[in-house]
Amino acid sequence: MVHPPTIADVNEADLLPESLREDFPILQQTVHGDKPLVFLDSAASSQRPRQVTQALVDCYEQDYANVHRGIHVLSERATDAYELARAKVRDFIGAEHSREVVFTAGTTASINTVARSWGDANLAAGDEILVTPMEHHSNLVPWFQLAERTGAVIKHVAMTDDGRLLPEAFDEAINERTKVVAFTAVSNTLGTVNPVKEIAAKARAAGAISVVDAAQSAPHMTTDVRQLGVDFLAFSAHKLCGPSGVGVLYGREALLEAMPPFLGGGSMINRVYDDHFTPAGLPAKFEAGTPPIAPAIGLGAAIDYLQAIGLGRIHAHEAALVGYAWRRLADIEGLRLLGPSPLEHGPEVRAGLVSFVLDRPHAHDIAQLLDRDGVAVRAGHHCTQPLHDRLGITASTRASFYLYTTRGEVDALADSLATVREKFRPTGRKRKPRSAGE
Amino acid sequence: MVHPPTIADVNEADLLPESLREDFPILQQTVHGDKPLVFLDSAASSQRPRQVTQALVDCYEQDYANVHRGIHVLSERATDAYELARAKVRDFIGAEHSREVVFTAGTTASINTVARSWGDANLAAGDEILVTPMEHHSNLVPWFQLAERTGAVIKHVAMTDDGRLLPEAFDEAINERTKVVAFTAVSNTLGTVNPVKEIAAKARAAGAISVVDAAQSAPHMTTDVRQLGVDFLAFSAHKLCGPSGVGVLYGREALLEAMPPFLGGGSMINRVYDDHFTPAGLPAKFEAGTPPIAPAIGLGAAIDYLQAIGLGRIHAHEAALVGYAWRRLADIEGLRLLGPSPLEHGPEVRAGLVSFVLDRPHAHDIAQLLDRDGVAVRAGHHCTQPLHDRLGITASTRASFYLYTTRGEVDALADSLATVREKFRPTGRKRKPRSAGE
Repeated sequence: MVHPPTIADVNEADLLPESLREDFPILQQTVHGDKPLVFLDSAASSQRPRQVTQALVDCYEQDYANVHRGIHVLSERATDAYELARAKVRDFIGAEHSREVVFTAGTTASINTVARSWGDANLAAGDEILVTPMEHHSNLVPWFQLAERTGAVIKHVAMTDDGRLLPEAFDEAINERTKVVAFTAVSNTLGTVNPVKEIAAKARAAGAISVVDAAQSAPHMTTDVRQLGVDFLAFSAHKLCGPSGVGVLYGREALLEAMPPFLGGGSMINRVYDDHFTPAGLPAKFEAGTPPIAPAIGLGAAIDYLQAIGLGRIHAHEAALVGYAWRRLADIEGLRLLGPSPLEHGPEVRAGLVSFVLDRPHAHDIAQLLDRDGVAVRAGHHCTQPLHDRLGITASTRASFYLYTTRGEVDALADSLATVREKFRPTGRKRKPRSAGE
Repeated sequence: MVHPPTIADVNEADLLPESLREDFPILQQTVHGDKPLVFLDSAASSQRPRQVTQALVDCYEQDYANVHRGIHVLSERATDAYELARAKVRDFIGAEHSREVVFTAGTTASINTVARSWGDANLAAGDEILVTPMEHHSNLVPWFQLAERTGAVIKHVAMTDDGRLLPEAFDEAINERTKVVAFTAVSNTLGTVNPVKEIAAKARAAGAISVVDAAQSAPHMTTDVRQLGVDFLAFSAHKLCGPSGVGVLYGREALLEAMPPFLGGGSMINRVYDDHFTPAGLPAKFEAGTPPIAPAIGLGAAIDYLQAIGLGRIHAHEAALVGYAWRRLADIEGLRLLGPSPLEHGPEVRAGLVSFVLDRPHAHDIAQLLDRDGVAVRAGHHCTQPLHDRLGITASTRASFYLYTTRGEVDALADSLATVREKFRPTGRKRKPRSAGE
């Protein structure tokens, strides 16, 4: 049934050296006895190299104190490290100013900040918020809530049957009432790489803001907010070899400047009186309370790590693995791959993940059976229920890759899947009916 | 000028063994050359024992994956550890159910959640929000913003001149229009321990909710939300020997159940449709997006650490140090101590910090000069500008203690301060007037 491709199917030069896996202690383990761990769930959250963990330890054991306003050695060191991390993010995404980089709790917190602060200040009944059918719940629910508060209307742009967004579809969907165009740079379920620059340009031409969910793109390919011409862009550290608990909101300075604060508390104020306050400047205005100091510093270390390898090389590595996985999984009977085919549209149409449905068993059972072989994948709706509705399915199974994923791990996935499918193969025989009283 | 107290001034039995400092690698350093670090800035953010850092490393190097919905070994382990941390918090604060414990980004995020979710749903023009003059900006600004959105009115309860809140003052301030009573359990500037139980009871009797900022109390003394009878209570891990990036919102189940969601995104939903959604149950409803997984697990380790020592012993240790510091600093000429005197009102009136103003030099200069001696304190308004206004000062200097603070460090503070004051002593001589043209 399965025909292992030959070496020629993958350009060896595109693959990163497997020696970098030595930086990831968590990957050096066996599960369920002696099964080597095959971690294919990086789109949910990545693993992190020891360099990042060490940056956290160094921070906590040498240089930690609360940041800003502290007039002592530890506070100055911590403040410098925290602001250096902001500068690294600025450089990582090509922002013009560090004050356009806001540290948040994560992608979800970033998008909610835009929806609450920009949205509540700028939307009115009848205004339109354009989303896409492939959005993660984090780039839908905040807009649904905004629509509920303001009377604005949610609209969906059209998507091709194989899960692509065509720029021309936005021409039809955007009109003079469109105030927000919220879309993902890479689909966490389909793997589609969307034409961010083209969509953002259409939004801007119509006077709408673009809000880009970069949770699945920032870790895997070069991001340049100025080149892309986006207004807001959000991503999380934990999907990017960084720590839990911190993310980024990029916003164009003029927009952030004009926005009212969102969360209230320390640091985001200029002066507090008995019953009112004046807000601080950027980026402090949007960083109420003690920020995620060590996680932000750890994010800086993650960016250093990724940039030393090169985002271009990481993307090429993942594209090679996806092409390989696509061919291997397509050979499995009864398996439907979701999203655009890299064989048809070229490797640039996809990021490093493959989602699929098997005619049997159910996605959750597949995940459980793969897990017994040490293969960690995710099953369910991946926080994209409207997309699953559109595809006519309730759940799918997703294998997602990162710089540490190897071709051998893709083979392990394919082999394990083929075995699962074989086990659940429709036999054509009907079950013997139970006799009454049995 | 300075009369060092005798050993008899401190009950040795109240002090924790200095050997526990070995758990805190960051404290084993010298600064500015050979000056041993004297870290007296724990109220801004505490340091953490190696047990907590190790918990983070173990998580990241052995058991990390995204939590919930993952059907593989790492995700199950991470989910178990994350939910175990929630159970530890539940036990730590005496909550009835784990679903009353919401992990947030910190105290500020917790209070904003109540102000936005409960506040927007329940307040109307003319309703009153009662705060105290000693609140941190994090327990003021969210209420100011709520008042601005709803037309509710901010009121301040009276405070004694020495910085105490008397329960009877709330009788005068609370009326049938009062919907929220927001107050701190311990003042981050004055050190006052407030009568939380009495205030919460008065709020409830009037049909108002109580929102308690426990950022400065949870790390230092036993918290029992049921015994205290509070509705909402917020604190941060980073002030409690825990990691950056996570905090807690406790809410009574009936209140949380009735509240609409705040942040929208993954995990907080039951079902997402094309333009609307139904929310998840507790606590997921208030945990949108990937939560701070490793920091929450680290918070659990911090709670283990503190409970092994005992919150009662930690409080006794700090009370002994504050009494000692109070006597030593009171001996310094021109120094005004802020907040209630533990000598007058007993040690229970104060938590482990002392704030003061010197007639000269300015608070920031004091902090800088102390830093040269290795003594790390905080200077400024400590995010309590209305309190500083009330006290007729613009800034103060604060030395804050924790379980690892020693009496020798209090001596180092007092000695360094005495030297600073000596250096800036008013000489009585006037400066020679400059000649014109000079």
